Amino acid sequence: MPQSNRPLLALKEYFRSHFDEIREDFFTFLSFPSISAQPEHKESLLACLNWLKALLLKMHFSVEVWPTSGNPVLFASHLKAGKDKPTVLIYNHYDVQPVDPLEKWTTPPFEPTIRNGEVYARGAQDNKGQCWYVLQAIKALLSEKGELPVNLKLCIEGEEEIGSSGLQQIADKQREKLKADYLFIADVGIPQKETPAITLGIRGVITFTIELTGSSTDLHSGELGGIAINPLHALVDLLAKLRDSEGRITIPGFYDQVTELTQEEKAQIQFDFDAEAYKESFGLEPSGGEKQFSPLESCWVRPTCEINGISGGYSGEGFKTVIPAKATAKLSCRLVPDQDAEKIRTSVIDFLNKNLSRGVQMKIETHPGGSEATRSSPDSKIIQTTAQAYSEVFGKPCQFVLGGGSISVANKLQKASGGDLVLMGLGLPDDQIHAPNEHFGLDRLEKGFLIIARTLQMVGNF
Amino acid sequence: MPQSNRPLLALKEYFRSHFDEIREDFFTFLSFPSISAQPEHKESLLACLNWLKALLLKMHFSVEVWPTSGNPVLFASHLKAGKDKPTVLIYNHYDVQPVDPLEKWTTPPFEPTIRNGEVYARGAQDNKGQCWYVLQAIKALLSEKGELPVNLKLCIEGEEEIGSSGLQQIADKQREKLKADYLFIADVGIPQKETPAITLGIRGVITFTIELTGSSTDLHSGELGGIAINPLHALVDLLAKLRDSEGRITIPGFYDQVTELTQEEKAQIQFDFDAEAYKESFGLEPSGGEKQFSPLESCWVRPTCEINGISGGYSGEGFKTVIPAKATAKLSCRLVPDQDAEKIRTSVIDFLNKNLSRGVQMKIETHPGGSEATRSSPDSKIIQTTAQAYSEVFGKPCQFVLGGGSISVANKLQKASGGDLVLMGLGLPDDQIHAPNEHFGLDRLEKGFLIIARTLQMVGNF
Repeated sequence: MPQSNRPLLALKEYFRSHFDEIREDFFTFLSFPSISAQPEHKESLLACLNWLKALLLKMHFSVEVWPTSGNPVLFASHLKAGKDKPTVLIYNHYDVQPVDPLEKWTTPPFEPTIRNGEVYARGAQDNKGQCWYVLQAIKALLSEKGELPVNLKLCIEGEEEIGSSGLQQIADKQREKLKADYLFIADVGIPQKETPAITLGIRGVITFTIELTGSSTDLHSGELGGIAINPLHALVDLLAKLRDSEGRITIPGFYDQVTELTQEEKAQIQFDFDAEAYKESFGLEPSGGEKQFSPLESCWVRPTCEINGISGGYSGEGFKTVIPAKATAKLSCRLVPDQDAEKIRTSVIDFLNKNLSRGVQMKIETHPGGSEATRSSPDSKIIQTTAQAYSEVFGKPCQFVLGGGSISVANKLQKASGGDLVLMGLGLPDDQIHAPNEHFGLDRLEKGFLIIARTLQMVGNF
Repeated sequence: MPQSNRPLLALKEYFRSHFDEIREDFFTFLSFPSISAQPEHKESLLACLNWLKALLLKMHFSVEVWPTSGNPVLFASHLKAGKDKPTVLIYNHYDVQPVDPLEKWTTPPFEPTIRNGEVYARGAQDNKGQCWYVLQAIKALLSEKGELPVNLKLCIEGEEEIGSSGLQQIADKQREKLKADYLFIADVGIPQKETPAITLGIRGVITFTIELTGSSTDLHSGELGGIAINPLHALVDLLAKLRDSEGRITIPGFYDQVTELTQEEKAQIQFDFDAEAYKESFGLEPSGGEKQFSPLESCWVRPTCEINGISGGYSGEGFKTVIPAKATAKLSCRLVPDQDAEKIRTSVIDFLNKNLSRGVQMKIETHPGGSEATRSSPDSKIIQTTAQAYSEVFGKPCQFVLGGGSISVANKLQKASGGDLVLMGLGLPDDQIHAPNEHFGLDRLEKGFLIIARTLQMVGNF
């Protein structure tokens, strides 16, 4: 970072001089128990939405509340930069994860507390913290002349933690409103605290619940063992066929649409993996994927078909000699570019139907919230610009990584807005985002603020 | 049945003229909540034992209470028939199954009620009803001259429903006391209400709990899917290897000790199976066993290796994208003559260890209460005699069947006593013995009484 980076210094000065106010309002934002998975928090979600709405109105944004089948979406725009300036859409969400087990929280989840420079609260990172630095960056930019360097749109939804089905349903209808040159999804992270990195892509996901039924009732494995069909046997036979001994998924056509990275693309992405650190953290080798791929290749550029749950029969203390009537499994596939979610869904269902043992009935349920992968080019102007902002703020070169997880709405929003996607954020793997004691560092709040503000300033000069 | 069967007519006359007293005392026996699986019923078990003890003392039996690691065994003997008379040991149990779900009982489980000639209560059949006709038959025989036609020993235990581990542990030490020419285990049934049948054998059973551990903690199937080893995949891979496509168990040596029935033996046993009735009851074909065996052969003369439960990961509503740290399964093997339980146990464990995927840890727990199969010859004097008693009482020829289930203590008690085993009883498949509304017919109480009394009379003439 050149010492003469005056815009950055000015922004830093703004953040530090406004810190008390930034912190105070952030704590108010965090105090809403806006848990989307639990219907009893409906009113808190609306209260949180209205609080954000008032805040954006004060910042002279036009604000719309879009009703959905579930929680409403807050859409806000500030389109006064002029027609020659790019339009940027930034996505965040105001809903949070449940807080159970409550007793494991050191301080209450909706009473934010600072310990060792980290803010502890549900949503501190995911996604209120990352939403907050976005809003504060905008506020800072407006503070100077009441203007923004770009035409700005904000889409802040309330169902990300439960699959974004409301926003997914209305995204197409709101194409005009969502239209943008660039789409920032500020909901991801960096590999280490001091490593600036942009996520060039995430995987998509589709999920299934499979229920096998044998007899109409549980039977006794002595009285009828050897006569009765056992759906647990049928289930293990079926699921064992999903992968071969090399870890490859055996579903016909599963890999047909997988686009491999070119050597050039591969060289731009940080694929190094610390196997020793992994082994130390989790107690075993990182060898869950296909044998011929490295750990991060398996996680980032290869699809998976994973069993996420099995239940059936008796699993308590001691023993019960039962042949259960039913056995169930949860399956999910992570998808990479350019796999089509519908095509893979059909292939999985066909495979399951073709490989089911005779005599057993199967019911397959596919869950909503499925999504496809996204991938941004490291060579694009917007990625290069955002990377420069990261580099300035961290004082070191920005890396490019990919992500194994999924953001349900990413692909959909990318298509609806037509914008080039930037997945950005400052989350860390140990922020405990879906667990007790979620936290986010004040240093990262500042860095996020700086990155967003600097990126928007530079995009304004495109 | 010849009309001139005077002993039978006399016994019938006894039963009917003493019916009120037999019923009243039976109801007292049934009113003890002697549930061995639930520690809070410990006192009721002891009260029930003491009640039986007083009853046997009144019948001039010598009574001993054998302490065990769990509930005591009641041992009673009446050895005054003389050295030239055979000694008969009869086994029953005074403990019963739990009663949950209580709300499904039409009348309370420990307040016996008669409806349509059936006594409804927990234990009405299993095993207090079958114990009761034994005791009443002895009482009737004693009533004439204060003598019994044989030297008689009774072994009434209090842990059958939880695996008989107490009695199994002390059986060897009590060999002298248990010594008998014939051992009756009055704890089985007949296929239909009007079909006299003796069970020539039951299967043994050994059980396992298998726990596979992958990572030290649950992981996210997006973030680490393709990197993390999933123990659910390892588990289905492992369990799918247990059987081939023909339903044969693939564990090396599993069938080595299986003794096949000769054509002659086969011809003596009733192997007819009503597949249509099965399909109507349970909604699918009876095709759970090895393809080349008929349903009753698969259940009676072939061993099984059955999965009785699997659990791991998330199985609730909706979806959770988890790679679980652990996955568990319950396995049981039913054994037939002359499979050695220890040998099979070792073969199963070896197989599991050899076929486990790399990278996963396995813990195998074997449960107590394992047992080996029993088999009685239909040509033996004691089986022929008991069959004659059944025929007399039912007025039609007695069939021979086998059983797929297990009685933990049968093989052990047979060895300890040295007696020829007779598995007898009058249970019916729909007596609901481990379910709400357990019941036993007064007609069967009478038939059991007559069969036991007539058998003892005939054995006295050996």
